[in-house]
Amino acid sequence: MEEPGTPRSVGNNLDPWYSNYAERTAGLSASEVRALFAVASRPEVVSLAGGMPNVSALPHDVITDSIARVMREQGATALQYGSGAGQPVLREQILEVMALEGIRGTVDNVVTTVGSQQALDLVTKLFIDPGDVILAEAPSYVGAIGVFRSYQASVVHVAMDDDGLIPDALRQTIAQLRGQGRRIKFLYTIPNFHNPAGITLSAERRPEILEICRANEILVVEDNPYGLLYFDHPAPDALRSIDDEGVIYLGSFSKTLAPGFRVGWVLAPHAIREKLILAAESAILSPSAFSQLTVAEYLKTADWKGQIDTFRGVYHERKKAMVSALAEYLPDLTWTDPNGGFYVWLSLPDQLDSKQMLPRAVKELVAFTPGTAFFADGRGRHAMRLSFCHPTPENIRVGIRRLATVINGEIDLLETFAGTGMLESRSSDRHVSTPPPNLN
Amino acid sequence: MEEPGTPRSVGNNLDPWYSNYAERTAGLSASEVRALFAVASRPEVVSLAGGMPNVSALPHDVITDSIARVMREQGATALQYGSGAGQPVLREQILEVMALEGIRGTVDNVVTTVGSQQALDLVTKLFIDPGDVILAEAPSYVGAIGVFRSYQASVVHVAMDDDGLIPDALRQTIAQLRGQGRRIKFLYTIPNFHNPAGITLSAERRPEILEICRANEILVVEDNPYGLLYFDHPAPDALRSIDDEGVIYLGSFSKTLAPGFRVGWVLAPHAIREKLILAAESAILSPSAFSQLTVAEYLKTADWKGQIDTFRGVYHERKKAMVSALAEYLPDLTWTDPNGGFYVWLSLPDQLDSKQMLPRAVKELVAFTPGTAFFADGRGRHAMRLSFCHPTPENIRVGIRRLATVINGEIDLLETFAGTGMLESRSSDRHVSTPPPNLN
Repeated sequence: MEEPGTPRSVGNNLDPWYSNYAERTAGLSASEVRALFAVASRPEVVSLAGGMPNVSALPHDVITDSIARVMREQGATALQYGSGAGQPVLREQILEVMALEGIRGTVDNVVTTVGSQQALDLVTKLFIDPGDVILAEAPSYVGAIGVFRSYQASVVHVAMDDDGLIPDALRQTIAQLRGQGRRIKFLYTIPNFHNPAGITLSAERRPEILEICRANEILVVEDNPYGLLYFDHPAPDALRSIDDEGVIYLGSFSKTLAPGFRVGWVLAPHAIREKLILAAESAILSPSAFSQLTVAEYLKTADWKGQIDTFRGVYHERKKAMVSALAEYLPDLTWTDPNGGFYVWLSLPDQLDSKQMLPRAVKELVAFTPGTAFFADGRGRHAMRLSFCHPTPENIRVGIRRLATVINGEIDLLETFAGTGMLESRSSDRHVSTPPPNLN
Repeated sequence: MEEPGTPRSVGNNLDPWYSNYAERTAGLSASEVRALFAVASRPEVVSLAGGMPNVSALPHDVITDSIARVMREQGATALQYGSGAGQPVLREQILEVMALEGIRGTVDNVVTTVGSQQALDLVTKLFIDPGDVILAEAPSYVGAIGVFRSYQASVVHVAMDDDGLIPDALRQTIAQLRGQGRRIKFLYTIPNFHNPAGITLSAERRPEILEICRANEILVVEDNPYGLLYFDHPAPDALRSIDDEGVIYLGSFSKTLAPGFRVGWVLAPHAIREKLILAAESAILSPSAFSQLTVAEYLKTADWKGQIDTFRGVYHERKKAMVSALAEYLPDLTWTDPNGGFYVWLSLPDQLDSKQMLPRAVKELVAFTPGTAFFADGRGRHAMRLSFCHPTPENIRVGIRRLATVINGEIDLLETFAGTGMLESRSSDRHVSTPPPNLN
């Protein structure tokens, strides 16, 4: 097994093209997500690692019917190249989806993308010169950090607490960077059911965060794949609902429908959206008409809101299973208790290192994502992300029990050998402390 | 109508984020392909402009059946995230497709992409620092030039004749650039049924071109979307069949099946393929499993080789219609007579400017692509690309007749007013002469 978090070497003397790569290529390292997919695919392992939605909760026959209808009624369009901005019918429907979170936009400013990951890639390509700063929560989405690195951005984390990004921390970070003469291009934020932290930015803070960015002429990139997957009560309205000129909004059908279609979108201010389309055409000509029309037909004919309710119920049950198992098996630790989404963030005692612990965990047939995956600066060793989206509630309990065995075993070991110097190697990098994110 | 070839302004003072864009964003201009799609969509216009395959020649029911089977038998996989390298079953089948052109590869080195356009984007991202040189045929594929520009590459064209890229011209160009201290990263070439030139690189020249690149440590990017769509006799074996360490090979199902799935692929030397996967994951996490498995099921159960034969027949008939109409209506001009693919390259008298002529042509209800779209350096005014892939043979004849009306009208005008000075404005940019590509 390849250990997540270990960047693979990209280029060596056995590669005859070694000296030909672009500078940015040095920043590419194996996605922790990819290694985690590999781990998760072994059936005996309870994976609390990946972010795979529970597509088995979908009515496959409804989707099959949608596709058949698309092929029968619009086959020639579905099979052909389409507009670089995406299929108009789907972009209309996306407005309805976003309206559920208070967003009013126009079809013209919606661009469909290959999942919202491509949207992130395009936005970064448009804005980032090497060395430019992107602000992001501490911790932040591993896939976003990967994209930002691939364009040689410098990611600077801003602290969160239980109410999300801390306005004062944002102000201080901006002032400090400006003092250093750094160029800050945008704030990347996941306001709802944060990946990986499980936190939601409070309604009170939303206008304040926007005001800080506006005052500093910093664009906000709002990534909201989980917003509709709330548990007890809806998330506050989107940042984009408050500010339509300073926010690029990213949405996705990967969690509310299925990731296999690879359909996401961007809603951008008009001038930016124009460039996004040009960048998208350059990258892929046009997104799949076949996928987009299938999603459009599903939205038109199926009870998609009812389906989201079903998903909410499924994920809520799993979240409860995880949190109650944590309380039972790891009562001395702290974790976040999210009101939606897929993830719990577990904080470990300072002596423990989640990355070093992972191989032992996999041996015990449980996988998680080490906290280091979610930082661009090496932090996160004393935390981990636990996903409750994919395994059944029963398996989540089994997984947490196994995890507790590993963690308690590590703690025992530390207590037994404390002060003997025999565990020194375990504390390498211990100088980087885990950030404060939010204890439940 | 927006005139193809006119770069749109990207950013102005009405855009509050104007000063925030990356340097590379200045290189983004409206894809000529996009503008052409807009023109082509008007039903009264005979479009000889776009490169849209004739998907109506496909058996839609066979495709619908493939999808239904995929959803029934592998629904959970089709709807889920997948491997960043693509679905293994499809990558196996891609080896069979490539074997038809003499290529032997391993599944490990195949990466599926969102059309081969994404492959081009990823390869360029991996290799190009601003100012690096990419060598390309004169003319070259408009979409490739767009990607190259978006990474701030400097595209240097190399002359072709009837047998394709001219080895001596390649040697001279390399020597000249090296003399200037320029860094040449790769040669981008479309050896078969070239887009837009309609030319095929001769079998004799293939090893010679490879040898020149090898000797100069220049990677070859071989783009081969049309190779299997030959007319009278197959194209010579792929460059990749001769050299597996120095060639990145790009393939696509957009022309042999349908572009709506957005499924293409790269076959790359092992070290490079590793980085390609990392770049692909960064850009989109994984390509659509739904699309890929549908293509895989089609390849497994349908007579895909028979279908390619059908396409060959359709396109051959259309090519013949175009060439005979040119001979009838524009006997004094010269054009290429391709043995496959989608395109004829028409050379105009030096006094005519295809870009200036386009609005008049559209008024006469025929569209084409001005030659300038296919050069990074402003050349191409005295040529145009004519696509025979999409319109019926009857409409191709109508289109060429209309085009002849426009061209002959322009020639009459020139002859009438020759020497009066009244047409001076028409000859702007005339100092850039059309390159020699291949007269039929």
